Amino acid sequence: MKLIIAVVQDKDSARLSDALVKEDFRATKLSSTGGFLKAGNTTFLIGIEDEKIGELMAIIKKNCKSREQLVAPISPMGGNADSYVPYPVEVQVGGATVFTLPVEEFEQF
Amino acid sequence: MKLIIAVVQDKDSARLSDALVKEDFRATKLSSTGGFLKAGNTTFLIGIEDEKIGELMAIIKKNCKSREQLVAPISPMGGNADSYVPYPVEVQVGGATVFTLPVEEFEQF
Amino acid sequence: MKLIIAVVQDKDSARLSDALVKEDFRATKLSSTGGFLKAGNTTFLIGIEDEKIGELMAIIKKNCKSREQLVAPISPMGGNADSYVPYPVEVQVGGATVFTLPVEEFEQF
Ligand code: NI
Ligand code: NI
Ligand code: NI
Repeated sequence: MKLIIAVVQDKDSARLSDALVKEDFRATKLSSTGGFLKAGNTTFLIGIEDEKIGELMAIIKKNCKSREQLVAPISPMGGNADSYVPYPVEVQVGGATVFTLPVEEFEQF
Repeated sequence: MKLIIAVVQDKDSARLSDALVKEDFRATKLSSTGGFLKAGNTTFLIGIEDEKIGELMAIIKKNCKSREQLVAPISPMGGNADSYVPYPVEVQVGGATVFTLPVEEFEQF
Repeated sequence: MKLIIAVVQDKDSARLSDALVKEDFRATKLSSTGGFLKAGNTTFLIGIEDEKIGELMAIIKKNCKSREQLVAPISPMGGNADSYVPYPVEVQVGGATVFTLPVEEFEQF
């Protein structure tokens, strides 16, 4: 048994959820923030038998792979006007950070 | 030292919180979602000395045990009308999913 | 690789976030509750190489150390009027509870 903690951008979160349900993985989702763009993200907790880890990782990778995308500029209100970029920029979106933790006991009541 | 991560349905969350406070266990609660009924749940983080794990598990089991309950049907708006069941159904409610994780260091500042 | 889970009072959370960004640590933040004063707190998840743990702990300690502070009394509306204290009291504020967990695998997609 392992506990998988996967931090996923909100953009990919619903798609990953659907894929997990479809493949019968049970996940708990925590609302979280952080990372470069200060964008919201979702932290998935997934308890899993060792022999199914490869399948789970493939699902996460497929649904959350990091890629580039054009992003509209954000108005500098309250920010630093010097760093304002008045045209769309290409940014990295998506991507998942995944920790595999050992589990000593697993119980369901 | 262990870290207990317990995912508990919102229905049982306040009761478990009260029981933990009463027995002097300190818990951190994270708002979470997931599981079959899409109902909200709460993820408890509890740091605990090894010799008190049995007592903690008994408290979780007592306050969150899975049981059956009649649930009113939910309107199929936006869902699949074919799967709509127009009368109360008996569903499993409550229940806790509990992971016991090893802790290498524990510090309080 | 380790996973650091740090539970920090909201009062210190923004300051710790800023310090972590400044020192190039990447943290995921989860909104959480619990502890003595029922005050909100933030749970930080930080993946870290073993050799940087000392530096990270020093940052957490510096920004979240427990200290005393005068707190205005809270009106007993809806609570127990017998336990109402009508003058400011000195309470412990801040402080961090930090778990260091072993990580078996770490992946980024
Ligand atoms: Ni196993
Ligand atoms: Ni111990
Ligand atoms: Ni390492």
